[in-house]
Amino acid sequence: MVVVDQLWQKHQPLLQQACAALQARGHWTPYPEIPSGKLYGASAREEGEAAYQALPGSHFSLLGPAPQGVDGVEVSPYTGSLGISYDLYAAEDLVDVAKQGMPAWRDAGPQQRAAVCLEILERLNKRSFEIGHATMHTTGQGFAMAFQAGGPHAQDRGLEAVAAAWQAMSVVPATSHWHKPQGKHDPLVMDKRYHIVPRGVALVVACSTFPTWNTYPGVFASLVTGNPVIIKPHAQAVLPVAITVQVCQQVLAEAGFDPRLVTMAAEGAEVGIAQTLATHPDVKLIDYTGGNAFGDWLSEHATQARLYKEQAGVNTVLIDSVASMKRTAQNLAFSVSLYSGQMCTTPQAILIPRSGVSTDEGTLSYEQVCEYLCNTVRKFLSDPERAAGVLGAIPNPATIQRLQQASALGKVLLASEAHGIPGYEGALYRTPLILSVEGHDPVWQQEQFGPVSFLVAVEDSQEGLALIAETVASKGAITLGVYSTDEALLDQAEAVAVEQGVALSCNLDGAVFVNQAAAFSDFHATGNNPAANASLTDPAFVAGRFAVVQSRRHVAAREE
Amino acid sequence: MVVVDQLWQKHQPLLQQACAALQARGHWTPYPEIPSGKLYGASAREEGEAAYQALPGSHFSLLGPAPQGVDGVEVSPYTGSLGISYDLYAAEDLVDVAKQGMPAWRDAGPQQRAAVCLEILERLNKRSFEIGHATMHTTGQGFAMAFQAGGPHAQDRGLEAVAAAWQAMSVVPATSHWHKPQGKHDPLVMDKRYHIVPRGVALVVACSTFPTWNTYPGVFASLVTGNPVIIKPHAQAVLPVAITVQVCQQVLAEAGFDPRLVTMAAEGAEVGIAQTLATHPDVKLIDYTGGNAFGDWLSEHATQARLYKEQAGVNTVLIDSVASMKRTAQNLAFSVSLYSGQMCTTPQAILIPRSGVSTDEGTLSYEQVCEYLCNTVRKFLSDPERAAGVLGAIPNPATIQRLQQASALGKVLLASEAHGIPGYEGALYRTPLILSVEGHDPVWQQEQFGPVSFLVAVEDSQEGLALIAETVASKGAITLGVYSTDEALLDQAEAVAVEQGVALSCNLDGAVFVNQAAAFSDFHATGNNPAANASLTDPAFVAGRFAVVQSRRHVAAREE
Repeated sequence: MVVVDQLWQKHQPLLQQACAALQARGHWTPYPEIPSGKLYGASAREEGEAAYQALPGSHFSLLGPAPQGVDGVEVSPYTGSLGISYDLYAAEDLVDVAKQGMPAWRDAGPQQRAAVCLEILERLNKRSFEIGHATMHTTGQGFAMAFQAGGPHAQDRGLEAVAAAWQAMSVVPATSHWHKPQGKHDPLVMDKRYHIVPRGVALVVACSTFPTWNTYPGVFASLVTGNPVIIKPHAQAVLPVAITVQVCQQVLAEAGFDPRLVTMAAEGAEVGIAQTLATHPDVKLIDYTGGNAFGDWLSEHATQARLYKEQAGVNTVLIDSVASMKRTAQNLAFSVSLYSGQMCTTPQAILIPRSGVSTDEGTLSYEQVCEYLCNTVRKFLSDPERAAGVLGAIPNPATIQRLQQASALGKVLLASEAHGIPGYEGALYRTPLILSVEGHDPVWQQEQFGPVSFLVAVEDSQEGLALIAETVASKGAITLGVYSTDEALLDQAEAVAVEQGVALSCNLDGAVFVNQAAAFSDFHATGNNPAANASLTDPAFVAGRFAVVQSRRHVAAREE
Repeated sequence: MVVVDQLWQKHQPLLQQACAALQARGHWTPYPEIPSGKLYGASAREEGEAAYQALPGSHFSLLGPAPQGVDGVEVSPYTGSLGISYDLYAAEDLVDVAKQGMPAWRDAGPQQRAAVCLEILERLNKRSFEIGHATMHTTGQGFAMAFQAGGPHAQDRGLEAVAAAWQAMSVVPATSHWHKPQGKHDPLVMDKRYHIVPRGVALVVACSTFPTWNTYPGVFASLVTGNPVIIKPHAQAVLPVAITVQVCQQVLAEAGFDPRLVTMAAEGAEVGIAQTLATHPDVKLIDYTGGNAFGDWLSEHATQARLYKEQAGVNTVLIDSVASMKRTAQNLAFSVSLYSGQMCTTPQAILIPRSGVSTDEGTLSYEQVCEYLCNTVRKFLSDPERAAGVLGAIPNPATIQRLQQASALGKVLLASEAHGIPGYEGALYRTPLILSVEGHDPVWQQEQFGPVSFLVAVEDSQEGLALIAETVASKGAITLGVYSTDEALLDQAEAVAVEQGVALSCNLDGAVFVNQAAAFSDFHATGNNPAANASLTDPAFVAGRFAVVQSRRHVAAREE
């Protein structure tokens, strides 16, 4: 297959760089995160926006089995109903077409599959502006974030998965020559072949908030190891997935493979296809991001498949002592505001000792730290343009309702405010609600998905760490932030992090935020607490997606 | 810790060799498989036998929590009741003591843990004769096989697991320096640390036939990745596990770790501790070898743990055409006889075309091939010393009963005979029962654990391959043997093997047998059919046993 060989020639250097980056875990990415014409081409911005603008009100056509209907319910929190319709399929038919392309994809081997995956990622990167707008209007993220998280950062995670899977597959040689001495007798000699084979059909259940970032790792890890992939998007965030599947299908077809190796299982008003797919006997891999109800259901019912899941958690920050109260507060103000607290990495509870916090502005009481944080958040969000860009718009009415009811959960230190988003008539951004509660009040240990932050009064940092350990163990967490000028306390926090399996960020007071995880360097989740049973991207995330089948044949002495 | 550092200095070269061997997958082992005084020391044979002889009738003491009683029900099929008693513990107590040693073992890191594991394996190797006798008298294997499979071959698989886990852990660096340029501004710089952490307590449920070979992979994969291990032996085959645990505890204590990081959950007449342990919330890893009833139960109930299991299957051989009918028949006679067909790799059904088999002795009919095979088995087992050594003695009365009832399942071509084992008064070996059945008769597709072989009449090789594919898909298999002088048919068989996920051996007519799998070269099972969900030892077998927890801290510009 000439085309695929060309793709391999083209992309092999990038794969090697990605593997080296994964081993070094420093900063690295081939996909620029800045939405700049200099990096993406002078006309990329306008072309991307125009491509997006052409979509609302149309039918988005993808390849798949025979459609059983069409539907589409996406509503942009900026511009209203998108009016985009998608084909609906029967679960059984989706599995059938997935299996049709599997043998040729399997037999193509890791190198050809990697080449195709890298080409898909390159084409996705070129459509980053269009994907950015699609992500903005389905998730509600501000455009800058939607571009980054939906485009290059998601592509980073996809490439990381390809590289990690490549490393895992490379442990197994294609052939071996087995030569066992037999003393005076002729040696026993065998030639052996080792085939990397897929597990079966892979299902990826996407979430509404990060339809590409949380989806690409599973999609590319499964695809590069030989498994066909069915992506089930959230009904509110289909478009970024649809564009992704379109690119996958185009590249697969050009490379001579069945384009329906990647399909989309859209839902409309009627839901339930995820359950049917997840328990299909031929579905052997499931990636899931979302709430605990379906996550727990999958663990219980989808026992025929290997399940990689990320669900709810309660992320915490402890402020023991700080080098700069101002920079600390600015950093946290951004962290709690970004995307209206709807990140799985957003800190929900900030624990502050009543014994006081040592700072460069003197020792501050619990109340003073609370006031400092609230004032910083207020000031940070005082400019509507910036506030709208950072907070975005919340598409899910349930999140808004939760926010409205949350005022009753503690003492309101900063009320949430709704303001119009400049340029989008009728669209609103909502500033975070900040509550003060006591450490022993379990209310802050429940996930409040959305712009709700708890400032939690604890006796001292030791009680804070103990409460954090308890919360991570029982509710799960993906991030933990600790501020301290005391090395011994940071070491203690690291021991808690290791014991509870949560990533620790210490003294973030610059332009790195606890909710950010950089591909090729940061692991996202650990799999060792209730928030997730998998990690982006550790060896366990990729190794289970393929099996090795060997064959062996005698080599006669004369042939040796 | 000086002792562990010395162990690392001592064993590092072996670990490097093992990792290189794993990547090359040629023949390699540091543990000699021949029970020879030249290799193990002039007095090793006598000392090993004496060490074993001192055990029957005694109490075998191990470290653990407070014993709740003692029991022991092992019966040697050669010499009768062993009369060895073991301490019994409460499941909850076993988990508690396992967790006590875990933090120090985790924090010791991969290098110290690998050093300890390699020292354990070396000590086990030195006790191979004693373990050989213990294996012989609990499993019924002849001594030569018991020595090999229970000693060096099991140690090979343990070392292989250590090497594979080492490779998987090595993908993650201990630290990284993250340096992200910010245009005209100062770069963002962070120092990061990555901790390899265990999943939790590991449970290994051993089987009665290969109490060490099927156990060491899980034990060493879990232990080297930081997890404490509880081994639950089969009540009939405790002693080889007990000796193993004794060695583990001795080495752990000498190295300064809690010896109860490896404990034994013995059962006596009363059973059930495996269920309690397997569903304990702190048990996060389970390795299981055994029947489908408990294997299926584990899949359904032990959802808090990662499960690596091997259960029943139906292994098949197809004879399409052969270069040497004599050598083929001799090879298969050994394969069906070895350990009375009680290997998970034993071929149970040999499919033979009614269209005839092309051989060096002319084209033989189905009946002629059957007769040839039966005569070869009869002749091979005509010498009682050899027959007893190859067949061993069957300890499980249920297996003998199954054999006695199996005559009704088809046309008896060769009846099973019971003969006295030279040197062991009252002990019997039993020759295989060989039955002829039609391909469409589903009887041969049910596992008949023990010395029962089916010769299956199929129309032609195509029907044979189709029936094999169907059997592997529905019943599972670990091995598939195909004999053909036609390359196209071998390729077709390889395609079936790849599709169904079963290891293929072609034209074995020398001293390699379909039931044998060599560590560092052959994968044992694939995880892609119902016989097993795991493979010894592919990347998936080891990668899920640890998580990575990271911490990151800003590096101020001046510190860089």
